[in-house]
Amino acid sequence: MSPAMNPAMNPALNVIEIIQCKRDGGTLTPEQIRWVIGRYAADDIPDYQMSALVMAVFKEGLNADELAAWVDAMLRSGDVLDFSHVAAPKIDKHSTGGVGDKVSLPLGPMVAACGVAVPMMSGRGLGHTGGTLDKLEAIPGFRTALDPPEFRALLAQTGLVLAGQSETLVPADRRLYALRDATGTVESIPLISSSIMSKKMAEGLDGLVLDVKVGRGAFMKRPEESRTLAETMVGIGRSYGTPVRAVLTDMNQPLGCEVGNACEVAESIEVLRGGGPADLLEVTYRLGEEMLLLGGTAADRREARTRLERAVSSGAAFEKLVEVVEAQGGDPAVIHDPTLLPAAPHHHEVAAARSGYLTRCDALDLGVAAMRLGAGRERKEDSIDPGVGLRILAKVGDAVEAGQPLIRLAWADRARLDQALPLVERALEIGEERVAPPPLIHGEVS
Amino acid sequence: MSPAMNPAMNPALNVIEIIQCKRDGGTLTPEQIRWVIGRYAADDIPDYQMSALVMAVFKEGLNADELAAWVDAMLRSGDVLDFSHVAAPKIDKHSTGGVGDKVSLPLGPMVAACGVAVPMMSGRGLGHTGGTLDKLEAIPGFRTALDPPEFRALLAQTGLVLAGQSETLVPADRRLYALRDATGTVESIPLISSSIMSKKMAEGLDGLVLDVKVGRGAFMKRPEESRTLAETMVGIGRSYGTPVRAVLTDMNQPLGCEVGNACEVAESIEVLRGGGPADLLEVTYRLGEEMLLLGGTAADRREARTRLERAVSSGAAFEKLVEVVEAQGGDPAVIHDPTLLPAAPHHHEVAAARSGYLTRCDALDLGVAAMRLGAGRERKEDSIDPGVGLRILAKVGDAVEAGQPLIRLAWADRARLDQALPLVERALEIGEERVAPPPLIHGEVS
Repeated sequence: MSPAMNPAMNPALNVIEIIQCKRDGGTLTPEQIRWVIGRYAADDIPDYQMSALVMAVFKEGLNADELAAWVDAMLRSGDVLDFSHVAAPKIDKHSTGGVGDKVSLPLGPMVAACGVAVPMMSGRGLGHTGGTLDKLEAIPGFRTALDPPEFRALLAQTGLVLAGQSETLVPADRRLYALRDATGTVESIPLISSSIMSKKMAEGLDGLVLDVKVGRGAFMKRPEESRTLAETMVGIGRSYGTPVRAVLTDMNQPLGCEVGNACEVAESIEVLRGGGPADLLEVTYRLGEEMLLLGGTAADRREARTRLERAVSSGAAFEKLVEVVEAQGGDPAVIHDPTLLPAAPHHHEVAAARSGYLTRCDALDLGVAAMRLGAGRERKEDSIDPGVGLRILAKVGDAVEAGQPLIRLAWADRARLDQALPLVERALEIGEERVAPPPLIHGEVS
Repeated sequence: MSPAMNPAMNPALNVIEIIQCKRDGGTLTPEQIRWVIGRYAADDIPDYQMSALVMAVFKEGLNADELAAWVDAMLRSGDVLDFSHVAAPKIDKHSTGGVGDKVSLPLGPMVAACGVAVPMMSGRGLGHTGGTLDKLEAIPGFRTALDPPEFRALLAQTGLVLAGQSETLVPADRRLYALRDATGTVESIPLISSSIMSKKMAEGLDGLVLDVKVGRGAFMKRPEESRTLAETMVGIGRSYGTPVRAVLTDMNQPLGCEVGNACEVAESIEVLRGGGPADLLEVTYRLGEEMLLLGGTAADRREARTRLERAVSSGAAFEKLVEVVEAQGGDPAVIHDPTLLPAAPHHHEVAAARSGYLTRCDALDLGVAAMRLGAGRERKEDSIDPGVGLRILAKVGDAVEAGQPLIRLAWADRARLDQALPLVERALEIGEERVAPPPLIHGEVS
């Protein structure tokens, strides 16, 4: 073996030197990045060295070339999917995570009903944010763990799959994400974007729409950080020749009126039946327009919008959800009658302390409150209660009267209710002056 | 257990929040620092979390209060020594590490012969720097691993002990240093100073003299960094009420003429017999003066110098070394006749390529060259050859003639010689213009 072929002998490929280089603000070579990620994925580099490197990356960042190499090394740690057996364009949507963000549930069926294949791979909720898999599992029997052959077969059959990520897809990310979670290195733009994009680029997509959240309930609190994150991810897509469009959407208050799991499924069904709250509809349709445009099945946004509206009004989108639920083992009866979904036994209302205008309805506090009720996870190993949650009865800008209920909590455990209530009360603020509702779409990046 | 007593329940004592706080440039509370170091020493916090924290400390530093808490937490991870059974003042000397730095060997006997007790705890060489323990072990039979009762008894008996650190002294540092070594986080002023000072403050000293090296062969290459390191360590001593004086000494070229292990013992014996090279004498006497002053056994530097010179000229210092070598199991015959020390079988001389003045004799390159010959360790587990080394035949500023030998290598293994030679050649530079020898004492901090 020549010295150049044996990494242990190659002085350029030394993990301590790689850490020191990044620590001191230097630039890593693609070879160094490929080597360090590959060795980490193979369990040849211990967690304690990787966490030092990741903290150095957190502090010093990665330039465009380093980021491309990092994503590529992550992607190559596992399988790359091939959906070429499906003729339709394959377009996925990914959200950076928010509170009340059930967009995937109505969006997938609407877009699939318009002839775009949607191989949607989602995650679980963690911390204050919800997860599509947890919401789907509120549907009795629904299976989100599909092996690759079943995923491929269902995508060909229904044009829409709503499932978790296969174990073999980007295993390096699973290990690295757990390490970042345990070492205070989550909120880093290069690390977030490489984690998301390595997984999405491994899905073999024709296009990707990103919903990048902005505001209190988002991972990135500052709008300029969210925009940088969006630009970074779009740039990664470009380097793979995959069209990516990012829409920056508001996450200062929860999206829609329901925060939880079963209640968010019910609200999603409402959208597919032609109802639903205005803000949820606006974000869902906007992302759907981008997906149809990327899929080449509409000439412009207006045409895309018309097709999506027709998919809803014709019942085709609703029927697509029924079809997918049946295909993935779920009970279609609950889609026809959402009152059959799991529900918490008790309710508690938080009312307006005085009359005025609702000036704050804080997504972060309400997300944590829902987690405390049992709708989310503080730790990965926590279990979820699908029936608990919050109903938002007033949105920012609404006039409210003293005593009027603002939030309705569906709860099952008194101790959990006691933990959630102070957060709900802190989340709400009533002022004397009318405030405008916050803009819902903060911008786009493509 | 109240929430405040149970760290797991206390929201202020969460390792991820502690990492995030330091990562974002925040200030840790003394409680957080005590908790995180204590838990790490108890093996309750994994290495991968500690390495992320240490990298954050590397990048963001520690303020004076944080540093005091950090040192204190390290110190409390193990035993604190008590030498109150010895009536004489207890003064130690610590060097930040250099090439050819054998000062401890002649200095300890000189100072002890003047009535100051010297409980000297030294380390091993690593990388390009030598270690006092390795040099002492070139003396056949000499034992550097003493348990605390034997250390205490020998200090009372001879007033000088030359040994390694007990296992029970600052165990947190042993674990943390190994972690820093493996994660590229060694060269940090707060981490270096807390590592050194926690161990020295655990020795229960009446005073400490620090030899902080400056220049190419020092850990800190830039003079301002060495000064900051010195000031930081003196400040830590002050917070413990322990007088600490730091002398900044030159390490651009090796100290003295011998670099190795047995050869440095021989050069140290030369000093105790009234000989030795001028630069080694100047640093040794200067540090000895500070030790006598801190020990209160001399009124001023001039008096201290006179006493030290008399200890050498009377033979008392030499006899003290013989006494210590016998007490610690070494063969005193080699002290009386250093030609009995281990010696390498072969020699190779590197000669001046042209006539002129020696303008560079690089301590770092020569330190690495000596390590490659087998005098030092690349990794902790490497073994040492006591007989190999370098003899410096010309110092910076000396006039040299073409063909004149500049360095004499004592070698045992041809492959190792081949690795060392290019470094020796690179270390030397001959110019046409005479240059002044570099100043030996760069300053002091007290």
